[in-house]
Amino acid sequence: MIVPRLIERKRDGLPIDAAEWRELVRAYARGDVPDYQMSALLMAIYFRGIDAAEVNALTDAMIESGGTLDLDHLSIPRIDKHSTGGVGDKVSLVLAPLIASLGVAVPMMSGRGLGHTGGTLDKLDAIPGFRSDLSLDAARKQIDAIGCALIGQTAEIAPADRKLYALRDATATVEVVQLIAASIMSKKLAEGLTGLVLDVKRGSGSFIPDEEREIELANAMIGLGAARGCPVVALLTAMDRPLGLACGNALEVSEAIDALKGDGPDDLMEVTFALGAEMLLLGGVSSSAEAAWTSMRDAISSGRAVEKFAGIVEAQGGDPRIIDDRSLLPSAPLTQHFVAPHAGFVTEVAPRTVGYGIIALGGGRRTMEDDVDSGVGFVISAKPGDRVAAGESLATIHARDDKSLAEGHRVLADAITIGDAPAASLDLVSHRITQSGVSSWIRPGVA
Amino acid sequence: MIVPRLIERKRDGLPIDAAEWRELVRAYARGDVPDYQMSALLMAIYFRGIDAAEVNALTDAMIESGGTLDLDHLSIPRIDKHSTGGVGDKVSLVLAPLIASLGVAVPMMSGRGLGHTGGTLDKLDAIPGFRSDLSLDAARKQIDAIGCALIGQTAEIAPADRKLYALRDATATVEVVQLIAASIMSKKLAEGLTGLVLDVKRGSGSFIPDEEREIELANAMIGLGAARGCPVVALLTAMDRPLGLACGNALEVSEAIDALKGDGPDDLMEVTFALGAEMLLLGGVSSSAEAAWTSMRDAISSGRAVEKFAGIVEAQGGDPRIIDDRSLLPSAPLTQHFVAPHAGFVTEVAPRTVGYGIIALGGGRRTMEDDVDSGVGFVISAKPGDRVAAGESLATIHARDDKSLAEGHRVLADAITIGDAPAASLDLVSHRITQSGVSSWIRPGVA
Repeated sequence: MIVPRLIERKRDGLPIDAAEWRELVRAYARGDVPDYQMSALLMAIYFRGIDAAEVNALTDAMIESGGTLDLDHLSIPRIDKHSTGGVGDKVSLVLAPLIASLGVAVPMMSGRGLGHTGGTLDKLDAIPGFRSDLSLDAARKQIDAIGCALIGQTAEIAPADRKLYALRDATATVEVVQLIAASIMSKKLAEGLTGLVLDVKRGSGSFIPDEEREIELANAMIGLGAARGCPVVALLTAMDRPLGLACGNALEVSEAIDALKGDGPDDLMEVTFALGAEMLLLGGVSSSAEAAWTSMRDAISSGRAVEKFAGIVEAQGGDPRIIDDRSLLPSAPLTQHFVAPHAGFVTEVAPRTVGYGIIALGGGRRTMEDDVDSGVGFVISAKPGDRVAAGESLATIHARDDKSLAEGHRVLADAITIGDAPAASLDLVSHRITQSGVSSWIRPGVA
Repeated sequence: MIVPRLIERKRDGLPIDAAEWRELVRAYARGDVPDYQMSALLMAIYFRGIDAAEVNALTDAMIESGGTLDLDHLSIPRIDKHSTGGVGDKVSLVLAPLIASLGVAVPMMSGRGLGHTGGTLDKLDAIPGFRSDLSLDAARKQIDAIGCALIGQTAEIAPADRKLYALRDATATVEVVQLIAASIMSKKLAEGLTGLVLDVKRGSGSFIPDEEREIELANAMIGLGAARGCPVVALLTAMDRPLGLACGNALEVSEAIDALKGDGPDDLMEVTFALGAEMLLLGGVSSSAEAAWTSMRDAISSGRAVEKFAGIVEAQGGDPRIIDDRSLLPSAPLTQHFVAPHAGFVTEVAPRTVGYGIIALGGGRRTMEDDVDSGVGFVISAKPGDRVAAGESLATIHARDDKSLAEGHRVLADAITIGDAPAASLDLVSHRITQSGVSSWIRPGVA
């Protein structure tokens, strides 16, 4: 393998074969191929693309660069969910215990906040004592015992992906759909899944604000899953406004607990049930979407879902008393209402503005070294389409000090638009993508 | 300056401004911008191009990364020649002393062999005692004293170019005409020239075997020279066969001395005089090409040219007695004729085959660490178009041992083609390119 010749071939639009990809990634992970050659290759891929066989080989090689969660001994299905990232998106916190309570193992590997979006690991950090940095061995034992673990990408999993991702971030080569798919799937497939559900966010608050590329990403991930015997189903969901009301780490944990107790916001429940039904169908636990929705509602109303959450929190060192006593969660000392400056219809709640607003309050990271203030954030009750009166409360700001409170007001004044008439917003769940193609999502006929 | 944003801009087809290029190259030379970001940028440039203002800024920054030959105090013009590289191309050895003997300072910076081509520095190494690794200060003093120095690119000159060139070589980003132009010109302009003549090789033995790109390269270099007040004139010359007869380091030195004494092969003299006339015209020393040719012939017939060569050799530690006693040059112990296998016309003498053949005999480098055997090579008297009889000698092989002698036979059998009828070959000097455009080269009306 002469690396400049491989780069040259990709540069000239010719493919690199599977064996060469394997050798290249292995050598790169070992440090025998320098970053400067890999980044030139990545930029050539940006311009020339990478075909399905190449992405398969790349993904395989990234998985093989590390360890995997060996769960083959389990008799129950292992299904995970992945989201492309949004604002107010606490679905994972609800979905993992809910689906695990229904007899599906959920080995869930999550990330930190990126750009304007929050990350499940940051939310979990708001739970006093909770540790997400389990070893693969500890995660496997916990899944054996209680069917679920909520962990981060450890150094053991796909180290070549971790190295490659950092390089892409530093060299303007992140935005290649196939490389995004390979990066996600190398981690997910290392979990030893029997199925994966993908939540592809649409709209102004998503990372891929273009429907064609969202479908391309879903198809790339479906193809990578199929090549390794892991069926993938994707739903396109709305991220033109925050999901649920709470935006901020501890506030979102609290809202997720509400949801597990049967008291979650409608939009959060709808997205959670839509994704959860796909997990239960992939796992063969439910025979129809209708049956899946009914099972999930039962799991919540019976208390089994929130009990499973308590079990996970306890197993990972967290304090399960937060479920009944929210005052044990971190909180911000100051809260203040944000009110409508005039009457009208809410036409927009801009998720990017809200997401960067949380960071401005200290509730997210500008750099990977920043400390996160888990207590701060917004609870935004206003939704696009709502009719509001002048002076009516649209949101509550949770801040550390007066300066941040004022900043929070500026953020919401910028994020929330009130107009004379309701404006169109995206369907909450719009498309369903499987190996057989793209179709409109149809809500199951349940109350 | 946020480097990933610069890469992103280039990737998206937007220019990087001059101040940013300066800052980037300065930071890269210091080691503050890593190779992996620079290589991603170079690959983006491969696909998106780089405009004239950007290349100017890049070239300026590369020059400024090192020292320059300060020759502003000289009252005489300073003109250099650069060749894109060929086989049997010993023009520099003849031209530098010839033009210096006519009152033009020639601060000539040359390189080593690259690929199938030879390098002037390797040829100079064949002269016992000769040192080309002068400091800038020593070169300046020698030019003050005798009007010429034959040197290599020292660590002092354009170190950013040196670093960038090595990176391009390792990342399949060499073949960008504008970057090639910037690399050459950053070194040439550091010589403090008042003019530059460019020999762009054409045909199968050249690095750029495509006339459109040869003209593009010439124009890029003319543009870079103009931006810094250094007029550049380019000639396109034939490299579809070796230049002159001798191919191999010591053999070429010997042929160059023949040429300086008035006994050089016709094709070598024609190319030397064509390039030399441009140097004398740029220097304002001759008023017409005809006058320039006459001056050059006088300098040779009077002995002034070869005396200047002797002076340069002596000044740089070499043994000037080689001029009258060629046995002082390195030589190979075995020589053997290569004869025509059958009668016919020589239709091709393939320069790449000959060039790689010299390397196979030990007379060139496969890697930068290889030792060079200066004595070996070929003297090929056969030229395309020659009518030859079966058994007639076409060349002499100079080799170290019997195995190499056999290898030399195989090389020449492969390189020299004899057909039934003469085939077309390129005009020795075909085009002349200046800032006003491209024209056919016209041979001066001299005998």
